[in-house]
Amino acid sequence: MIIVLKNGATKEQVGELISWLEDRCKVKTNLVEGVHSTIIGLIGDTLHMDTETIMANDCVESVQRVQEPYKNANRKFHPDDTVINVRGRVFGGNKLQVIAGPCSVESEEQIIQTAIACKKAGATMLRGGAFKPRTSPYSFQGLRREGIDLLLKAREETGLPIVTEIMSAAHLDMFDDVDIIQVGARNMQNFELLKELGRCDKPILLKRGLSSTLEELLMSAEYIMSEGNSKVILCERGIRTFEPMTRNTLDISAVPLLKHKSHLPVVIDPSHATGIAKLVEPMSLSAIAAGCDALEIEVHCEPKKALSDGAQQLTPETFAKVMEKISAMARFVGKPVDDAQ
Amino acid sequence: MIIVLKNGATKEQVGELISWLEDRCKVKTNLVEGVHSTIIGLIGDTLHMDTETIMANDCVESVQRVQEPYKNANRKFHPDDTVINVRGRVFGGNKLQVIAGPCSVESEEQIIQTAIACKKAGATMLRGGAFKPRTSPYSFQGLRREGIDLLLKAREETGLPIVTEIMSAAHLDMFDDVDIIQVGARNMQNFELLKELGRCDKPILLKRGLSSTLEELLMSAEYIMSEGNSKVILCERGIRTFEPMTRNTLDISAVPLLKHKSHLPVVIDPSHATGIAKLVEPMSLSAIAAGCDALEIEVHCEPKKALSDGAQQLTPETFAKVMEKISAMARFVGKPVDDAQ
Amino acid sequence: MIIVLKNGATKEQVGELISWLEDRCKVKTNLVEGVHSTIIGLIGDTLHMDTETIMANDCVESVQRVQEPYKNANRKFHPDDTVINVRGRVFGGNKLQVIAGPCSVESEEQIIQTAIACKKAGATMLRGGAFKPRTSPYSFQGLRREGIDLLLKAREETGLPIVTEIMSAAHLDMFDDVDIIQVGARNMQNFELLKELGRCDKPILLKRGLSSTLEELLMSAEYIMSEGNSKVILCERGIRTFEPMTRNTLDISAVPLLKHKSHLPVVIDPSHATGIAKLVEPMSLSAIAAGCDALEIEVHCEPKKALSDGAQQLTPETFAKVMEKISAMARFVGKPVDDAQ
Amino acid sequence: MIIVLKNGATKEQVGELISWLEDRCKVKTNLVEGVHSTIIGLIGDTLHMDTETIMANDCVESVQRVQEPYKNANRKFHPDDTVINVRGRVFGGNKLQVIAGPCSVESEEQIIQTAIACKKAGATMLRGGAFKPRTSPYSFQGLRREGIDLLLKAREETGLPIVTEIMSAAHLDMFDDVDIIQVGARNMQNFELLKELGRCDKPILLKRGLSSTLEELLMSAEYIMSEGNSKVILCERGIRTFEPMTRNTLDISAVPLLKHKSHLPVVIDPSHATGIAKLVEPMSLSAIAAGCDALEIEVHCEPKKALSDGAQQLTPETFAKVMEKISAMARFVGKPVDDAQ
Repeated sequence: MIIVLKNGATKEQVGELISWLEDRCKVKTNLVEGVHSTIIGLIGDTLHMDTETIMANDCVESVQRVQEPYKNANRKFHPDDTVINVRGRVFGGNKLQVIAGPCSVESEEQIIQTAIACKKAGATMLRGGAFKPRTSPYSFQGLRREGIDLLLKAREETGLPIVTEIMSAAHLDMFDDVDIIQVGARNMQNFELLKELGRCDKPILLKRGLSSTLEELLMSAEYIMSEGNSKVILCERGIRTFEPMTRNTLDISAVPLLKHKSHLPVVIDPSHATGIAKLVEPMSLSAIAAGCDALEIEVHCEPKKALSDGAQQLTPETFAKVMEKISAMARFVGKPVDDAQ
Repeated sequence: MIIVLKNGATKEQVGELISWLEDRCKVKTNLVEGVHSTIIGLIGDTLHMDTETIMANDCVESVQRVQEPYKNANRKFHPDDTVINVRGRVFGGNKLQVIAGPCSVESEEQIIQTAIACKKAGATMLRGGAFKPRTSPYSFQGLRREGIDLLLKAREETGLPIVTEIMSAAHLDMFDDVDIIQVGARNMQNFELLKELGRCDKPILLKRGLSSTLEELLMSAEYIMSEGNSKVILCERGIRTFEPMTRNTLDISAVPLLKHKSHLPVVIDPSHATGIAKLVEPMSLSAIAAGCDALEIEVHCEPKKALSDGAQQLTPETFAKVMEKISAMARFVGKPVDDAQ
Repeated sequence: MIIVLKNGATKEQVGELISWLEDRCKVKTNLVEGVHSTIIGLIGDTLHMDTETIMANDCVESVQRVQEPYKNANRKFHPDDTVINVRGRVFGGNKLQVIAGPCSVESEEQIIQTAIACKKAGATMLRGGAFKPRTSPYSFQGLRREGIDLLLKAREETGLPIVTEIMSAAHLDMFDDVDIIQVGARNMQNFELLKELGRCDKPILLKRGLSSTLEELLMSAEYIMSEGNSKVILCERGIRTFEPMTRNTLDISAVPLLKHKSHLPVVIDPSHATGIAKLVEPMSLSAIAAGCDALEIEVHCEPKKALSDGAQQLTPETFAKVMEKISAMARFVGKPVDDAQ
Repeated sequence: MIIVLKNGATKEQVGELISWLEDRCKVKTNLVEGVHSTIIGLIGDTLHMDTETIMANDCVESVQRVQEPYKNANRKFHPDDTVINVRGRVFGGNKLQVIAGPCSVESEEQIIQTAIACKKAGATMLRGGAFKPRTSPYSFQGLRREGIDLLLKAREETGLPIVTEIMSAAHLDMFDDVDIIQVGARNMQNFELLKELGRCDKPILLKRGLSSTLEELLMSAEYIMSEGNSKVILCERGIRTFEPMTRNTLDISAVPLLKHKSHLPVVIDPSHATGIAKLVEPMSLSAIAAGCDALEIEVHCEPKKALSDGAQQLTPETFAKVMEKISAMARFVGKPVDDAQ
């Protein structure tokens, strides 16, 4: 950590600051006096230090962190890729996972029919929302417990492991048989929920918040990991910008950056990112080319009757065509779609 | 709601869409055929309709909502200002509330000392974080239950009503004696929490998310109100932009816009919005001039030893000076600082 | 165009508005009266109409354009891809162009050496800045006329057509022998410059502004095209967001969207978008997978002595390796790197 | 400037970097070796140094500027406020200027009538666009030279000094009699234009770009000032965010920040920032409370027939009412509206 002092900082102020840093924060300091400015370099573990508090000193101009503020999620301390095995499907290895399914679980017929079609087209896992975070209280809120039961039936029917979103730690017991628990963008910084998930033994698919930085996403992963659960899968699903043509802007550069900074697997969700069904194919191919470990794609047996997010869901027929392109691209980049059964 | 059809829409497609709208969605339709495009105007209650699902029809180019999607929070249906009384202090009336106090409750001495100083300077309520949403799991997480107990002691000592943040519905019983429950920016769309708060009888201070639109803020208020709790206070606390000089960008235009669209009281938090203590005075005056009902300002008896957000907290001495300016401006605009004791 | 009227709009107001629309704006109107709101649908050419002026009527709630506001750049009116031939290299056809070269032209040795290396690695065109738009007046501003002369020498030496940026219409005569004139992001809405470029006969590579929407980019293309020059190449080079890890956020979804809305060729510039040399490879592959027509990549024979943007420029050795990957991906998607000589 | 080195940096790399810094960049270096990281502090004038080029060194992790990159615009080197006198009206002193007038000059009758009304209501200067930067080439582009002539007539009629926008250095001779030359948001980084304006002797009202940081605005001011023209007036006019309710988000915190970082006067344009006439009053009052030196407000004698930006222009009657509030607020904060005639 580097502290830049203000021009007029007095010897007393600097002395007091240095004492506080060494005595209270247990770090060593190194004072560098320049012509225009003076800086203090901190030597030691600064992970627990708060840059804002240092800024509250009148003599401080700015504070810069040199080390990343995350440890468990940091590739520097874990050079090898984390590989997460979910009923034989592997995230972070040399296979691509394709998680497909409807935005919401709506009925037994809908989820079973969609699951069968997804599997046939080559999907490796099934998604489906039982608890639905909706902007409006008047929109469909999900079938909740019943939705999870229907997903379990669909798994029984198809063998596809299931991924579904949690919205509150109070519901955690309902997720006992779920294969991957998803944390949605709006809950990325629901820290109480993250801590609870850190204490369970299931893989967590953690979505980046709509305006969260990549560092914040890694810090949220750190919340889960620091409680003991190291099975975190990161997901980029579009960030909020000024561009109105897409619902969000898919930040593909998140893939190589997250793989560089962290050892955790990275998923791309082109459906939520764009909100437009016809962009799912090009953005999926793009994501694979950039090195992602998995895709999460919305498929609905009848999108125009969907209870949520109709515009972005593919029909099973379109999904089958998109999967052909995905499979070819995945083979081309040397990370073929997983064929575990 | 207005549906614009694609150029090549066939009679069959349009017919099918109209049937679905009239039969399933229970709205009347009005078809307008133009030279370049055809539109369908919907007549009836469209609050429960999902624009995305309509977009999933191949023949639809775009869908535009005409009515606002919120009802309880909408000034159109409740022309008079909502006035919320908290132990004799009034939000939304002709008095300005100034909620002051530390970012975090850290110790009995700290909170009592700060509370006394805030009261002396003219603050009308006390804030203090017991549960702290921190980006890093390694940062101070708050004293939790003990923090609330200390706030209650500070209220006993000073008579100032207390405002403190909740992070999970599971903690709700600890907030029994709290005067106003705050929902932080990161939990603005924690819908399960909002629903629970909608079922309790306390005023809720709801902060706008870092990248939430004003309509989304009103929809979150609607979540609380649609469950029965109409005592919602809206709070603008800065939005995320590309500007690095301030932590966030305070959107002052939110004040007149929220007052125009809704009947709920509006609070401005200049401390979190800017992250810089010396901007608190100008932004507070600015907010009062724009018509806000209350300010929430961070004050700490010793900012440079604060366990969180030191850089934005005022010392009691500075706060006293800022309060003089605030009082004068509040009198000038005809909404003087509340002097209820 | 659709005009939504306010609830309380009087018959007189509506009548006055309709007369003005029909008499002054020469469009037909179609009034649709609903229960909660009344709308006017406009039939006819609304390209010249200003939505803001209509909004100035007291009785108007909102105005929505149905037709896109661009005509020449619109795929609806020109279904076939525009193909632009530059000395035998083709943009918008079935070949991929790779424009490579230094950020700035710095010396004869530097540009010739870099050009030879780029050609050897497989680049199909040469880029190099002679006029440099720099944030600081104290930064290197480019060799200007001399820089263009050096680029022409490099073309003579290698046969690579040259692309270089213009900053003012006053310099247009210096660009007589340049093959493609580039308009930088900061000048995307320098409308006087765009009009001048619309009157010349050269291909224009038009970069999206840092916070410009795709529709605004197409409107700027329209400025050039409406003056008679239809040879416009669109370029996405990153947009400004809150994410600090990259300089800008590369919006890859711009590729399929621009190809869908327009018939013009689309280039991706991964170097400026990310500002980080090691991201150039993954983002280039990503862009090809999404369907782009060309890449613009910065290569410098000695990046750490570059006079501008050192961090994002590749060494010739790295570029050669990246080109191998690019060539393979381009062949895979069926749009191989152009091998015209 | 502080350079943070990568963990694995070799002695040779560091030695080579230090030699290059000292020999080529003429700065002194100070090496600080920590446990986790090593930093180099630079001592001397780093204004001309390019952080990106330093980043191109393999051994460099990050580079942080300590000094601001602007000098002429920097309050540190010019502690006193710059005061700019325009025909007896003063920017940056203890009077508030109110620049009012139509978005575009449309006809002699329109501009004269509006000018008279603005003066009567208390405006101290007249604005009006002769050259209009419009997103669409099909929108009204301004009366150009004729527009300037009409503004001069309006000045003759009313005595109000005139402010009008330039779009190209090629038009500079037409601005000979104009009192203040405005540079629009879209041209804030039209560096060739800025340099030309730096060589003329007129006050320049420089608007912040739609997605420009405050530092970039100050760097653009620096372009003008470094060429010799120190009469620069800064203007905040809204930045681009994700919020759709207003056209842009007015960043009021720009006022105290710019006043803190720079000695130049600061103007707020609430009309363009919000795009909504009824927000002009609250945002004007807000801006005055925050300490601005001037307001720029759009007034049109008949907004609903305006050729541009109708929705944000006030009628003379509304403007007169807003001016009463502005005058009262300006007196209250001790910076009354200028009454120079």
